[in-house]
Amino acid sequence: MLDETTKGIFTIAATPFLPNGALDFDSLKNMVDAYIEKGATGLTILGMMGEADKLSSEESIAVIRTVTKHCNVPVIVGVSAPGFSAMTMVSNAAMAARATGVMVAPPSRLRTDAQITQYYQDTSEALGQIPFVLQDFPLATGVIISTSVILKIAENYPNCVMLKHEDWPGLEKITQLRKASDAGARRISILCGNGGMYLLEELLRGADGAMTGFGYPEMMSHVMTAYKTGNLEQARDIFDAYLPMIRYEAQPSMGLAIRKYSLAKQGVIAHPTLRKPAPLLTQDAIREIDALAQRQDRRLQAIDV
Amino acid sequence: MLDETTKGIFTIAATPFLPNGALDFDSLKNMVDAYIEKGATGLTILGMMGEADKLSSEESIAVIRTVTKHCNVPVIVGVSAPGFSAMTMVSNAAMAARATGVMVAPPSRLRTDAQITQYYQDTSEALGQIPFVLQDFPLATGVIISTSVILKIAENYPNCVMLKHEDWPGLEKITQLRKASDAGARRISILCGNGGMYLLEELLRGADGAMTGFGYPEMMSHVMTAYKTGNLEQARDIFDAYLPMIRYEAQPSMGLAIRKYSLAKQGVIAHPTLRKPAPLLTQDAIREIDALAQRQDRRLQAIDV
Amino acid sequence: MLDETTKGIFTIAATPFLPNGALDFDSLKNMVDAYIEKGATGLTILGMMGEADKLSSEESIAVIRTVTKHCNVPVIVGVSAPGFSAMTMVSNAAMAARATGVMVAPPSRLRTDAQITQYYQDTSEALGQIPFVLQDFPLATGVIISTSVILKIAENYPNCVMLKHEDWPGLEKITQLRKASDAGARRISILCGNGGMYLLEELLRGADGAMTGFGYPEMMSHVMTAYKTGNLEQARDIFDAYLPMIRYEAQPSMGLAIRKYSLAKQGVIAHPTLRKPAPLLTQDAIREIDALAQRQDRRLQAIDV
Amino acid sequence: MLDETTKGIFTIAATPFLPNGALDFDSLKNMVDAYIEKGATGLTILGMMGEADKLSSEESIAVIRTVTKHCNVPVIVGVSAPGFSAMTMVSNAAMAARATGVMVAPPSRLRTDAQITQYYQDTSEALGQIPFVLQDFPLATGVIISTSVILKIAENYPNCVMLKHEDWPGLEKITQLRKASDAGARRISILCGNGGMYLLEELLRGADGAMTGFGYPEMMSHVMTAYKTGNLEQARDIFDAYLPMIRYEAQPSMGLAIRKYSLAKQGVIAHPTLRKPAPLLTQDAIREIDALAQRQDRRLQAIDV
Repeated sequence: MLDETTKGIFTIAATPFLPNGALDFDSLKNMVDAYIEKGATGLTILGMMGEADKLSSEESIAVIRTVTKHCNVPVIVGVSAPGFSAMTMVSNAAMAARATGVMVAPPSRLRTDAQITQYYQDTSEALGQIPFVLQDFPLATGVIISTSVILKIAENYPNCVMLKHEDWPGLEKITQLRKASDAGARRISILCGNGGMYLLEELLRGADGAMTGFGYPEMMSHVMTAYKTGNLEQARDIFDAYLPMIRYEAQPSMGLAIRKYSLAKQGVIAHPTLRKPAPLLTQDAIREIDALAQRQDRRLQAIDV
Repeated sequence: MLDETTKGIFTIAATPFLPNGALDFDSLKNMVDAYIEKGATGLTILGMMGEADKLSSEESIAVIRTVTKHCNVPVIVGVSAPGFSAMTMVSNAAMAARATGVMVAPPSRLRTDAQITQYYQDTSEALGQIPFVLQDFPLATGVIISTSVILKIAENYPNCVMLKHEDWPGLEKITQLRKASDAGARRISILCGNGGMYLLEELLRGADGAMTGFGYPEMMSHVMTAYKTGNLEQARDIFDAYLPMIRYEAQPSMGLAIRKYSLAKQGVIAHPTLRKPAPLLTQDAIREIDALAQRQDRRLQAIDV
Repeated sequence: MLDETTKGIFTIAATPFLPNGALDFDSLKNMVDAYIEKGATGLTILGMMGEADKLSSEESIAVIRTVTKHCNVPVIVGVSAPGFSAMTMVSNAAMAARATGVMVAPPSRLRTDAQITQYYQDTSEALGQIPFVLQDFPLATGVIISTSVILKIAENYPNCVMLKHEDWPGLEKITQLRKASDAGARRISILCGNGGMYLLEELLRGADGAMTGFGYPEMMSHVMTAYKTGNLEQARDIFDAYLPMIRYEAQPSMGLAIRKYSLAKQGVIAHPTLRKPAPLLTQDAIREIDALAQRQDRRLQAIDV
Repeated sequence: MLDETTKGIFTIAATPFLPNGALDFDSLKNMVDAYIEKGATGLTILGMMGEADKLSSEESIAVIRTVTKHCNVPVIVGVSAPGFSAMTMVSNAAMAARATGVMVAPPSRLRTDAQITQYYQDTSEALGQIPFVLQDFPLATGVIISTSVILKIAENYPNCVMLKHEDWPGLEKITQLRKASDAGARRISILCGNGGMYLLEELLRGADGAMTGFGYPEMMSHVMTAYKTGNLEQARDIFDAYLPMIRYEAQPSMGLAIRKYSLAKQGVIAHPTLRKPAPLLTQDAIREIDALAQRQDRRLQAIDV
């Protein structure tokens, strides 16, 4: 079960579709294998980048069961929903299928500290014994969560065991949270998102790992291995080699299409299909991605990765 | 089946709960009877004021079946959902249960005219033969829909047969839409919401009726009957008698709690319970509602309603 | 000077323009006289409804000087500005011209409790000895201010002496603030806005008066006089007579055009002109306003107001 | 005067302050010299990154006069303001001081295509003969402007001569605008912002240059020179050397503090001071910037820039 000490790389999983929009379970299993082979120590499924809100609840449960049955790493399931009834239903199904925990982003109507705290109090009560991740992603949700609110949630709701950190800017938030836990506040795990854009700075500030996706998900394990073995400059070299593509994938609303194109190109999934509503990659965009991928290859070879 | 000529009063139905938060099917049936007795010529269920997003999909379908089985008036079902998979699933279930059509509000991320048009193109395709209502409620969705966009959607997607109008201010929009259809554009039905706050002006501008809720839903039929029989001043007298309460119920996020309190007080539903997240009515608020209800009674008596 | 004990009716003043868009100083003076004759015990100029953001700073200062020179009631000046340099400049000019205090709304980018508190700390420092009103108007600013944040600002910044209350819903906020000051927190003045839509409930909850505009500004003094002399039912009768028009004027973005039309019709200002960007009243709208005004007259006569 | 054919590098200028918050005119002149020496072919002053909204109008005019008097390159002046009165006043002062044109961002309340088009119609009329840049920066303004709206504004308002492009994602927008002008629509200049994050892709899509700031503003001229001389791979090498810092500076709300720190470190301005409200760089952040700057130096040396 997920807890406050969880570390590592939880790759945010895409949800593969067939060209007709149906779930592609073969690709799903293949992708899970690929993620783990490329260094994932855990998986997060049905997050925003998993197009969770485009699935019916039956489909969501089919994805959860397929993934948890197919692999042995811990699986976190995104269960954000407009109401607690749907959230609880999917959460219970996920835990029954051997998931390790769930992840909850705040609904976009929340504004004040008190509204956010109340929402996570309700979430905590609705989930009961199920450990959950607080997803802090203002660019997508529109909800700004203060450090003091996160600390209050961590203090009051023991089943909140992890922060998925993707505030932007968010580096000072990591430092403040770690200073607070060093000074006696409850310490929860912090895994970072944002497509890895600030991965090294996040680790240096005290993050416990990464929870994000990227078209070349081995980036995270290469960078973290170099970092953990003390080779910071090597970690920066590796990161910088991927950075032009990380930056390209960071384009909001286009990012998932770019990522799925890269995954399909590498054979990780069979089709780059997104469900509607979704942007289409133009030929111009594909040319740009291909050019970046070629340079990325050359540069990784040059630094022996 | 719902079509462009639909007129009348579609009362927005609450969803009654037991004190423990479970669906209260007895109250649901009793409430349906009361709405029709008080003048509803149709019902709209599982809208925003039906707490639709707090129900699991199983619960939604149970509510739909209970209502359509229990009454003979046309029933529109709110099916707004983050993705088309869930929307289609509930829509098909609703139509299989003899609903007359569905209602779709835009997701709050939409901004430009093109984004909104594209969304309703996708909606139209996803729904196929099912007639749908375009819900235009910027205060709740954050999406501003121009008159020209509504006309384009009406022109291009024949299964869009009705506008649920609750833009604010929105009176000019009705006039512009009616001028456009008088000049040859496709004419769709317009039923108005906003708790009835501008009901008479809306009718005078060319609306085909009301689609809203209110703690005293007979207000709509009393006002519309007087209006249709040419007694405009009487219609205004009746409207004005209810207006202090309409105004009180118009308080955002509090409105449904106020309405359910009024419905429970009159015995229409057994409990005023809302599902979380929901505001609680304080004793101060209840005193205010009771005072308004007493004056409303006296004033209605004074004008023989 | 404005302080925590200020009570009464601060009418929100329009800014009259000539048909060519230039400031209409004759109307400005006439309007000030009319407001005071109709019961204003103070004035608030250059607020949102004073089209302050459409004036250059030279024009703002000319308006301030004209009003303060022309009348003897206390004058509050809206000084909300994107930066403190402009805010301080106008505030100093206002106080030099014998204004009684200034009013500051939060910039719309603020989200968290800490951001709002920090903004008012900076405001308090920038204003120094000048007393200021905290304007809490989420519908216009997009900023939601918790009761606890208001209490913190009141506690920490002595030059914050008044709350302009127009949260919606906001009745519980008044009650909470009054409970807090009864329990020992610093008590600041609360004057209420929102076009008077909830005036009686606000007074009953503990407000110290009204700070709002309306096309028939005598409504506020009639209602408050009846209320203060213990004639609550009479106060309600008067309020209800005006309510259909209050409701009509409450239409966002249209409201000021409606109000200026009513003021011009009564001869309070010479022209109903608004500066761009501004909506135009159509003939349909004017007919609606005229019909409401006629009924309002009749009903006021019927209750001897 | 600015026109549709303008190309090149318009560096977005910071506004230097003394530690006490007063304008630092010596630094301003020194910075202007440095920008031009580092390759700027024009300057844009008083934009968002120029803290324009924190200046009083007197201060704005002093900055404009200092810059236009001190240099011979064309100077564009940001004149975005809540109302046209203030906008016109600053614009006239700027043109009187020999500016080449002005720049206008949309106010954040705009939503629909019609609202945006109307706003720029009013802008065009208010500015008369003054050429203006349409600033398209949704991340900062919250306003999403469709390609079709930009084309309509370009078609209808001849004094709109340039797009400051910083939509994100925005690459397809450049392609669509260029396709439209190739097919006969009026072609206006496109200069790109976003801190240079997608500079090469933007040029390849048809942009006419850059209008952005960065702590090492020579990046833009180095990249564009290599690009224009056909050395695309060299351009990419140079870009990639700066990218880790570009990415770091891209942090919203922190970016200007980072940029001013870099400029001060290089002696371009005397103090990294920002006016309130502004974030403070922590020691952790300064360490991160310094580490990135060192690697940037080494890598630029390695590729002989």
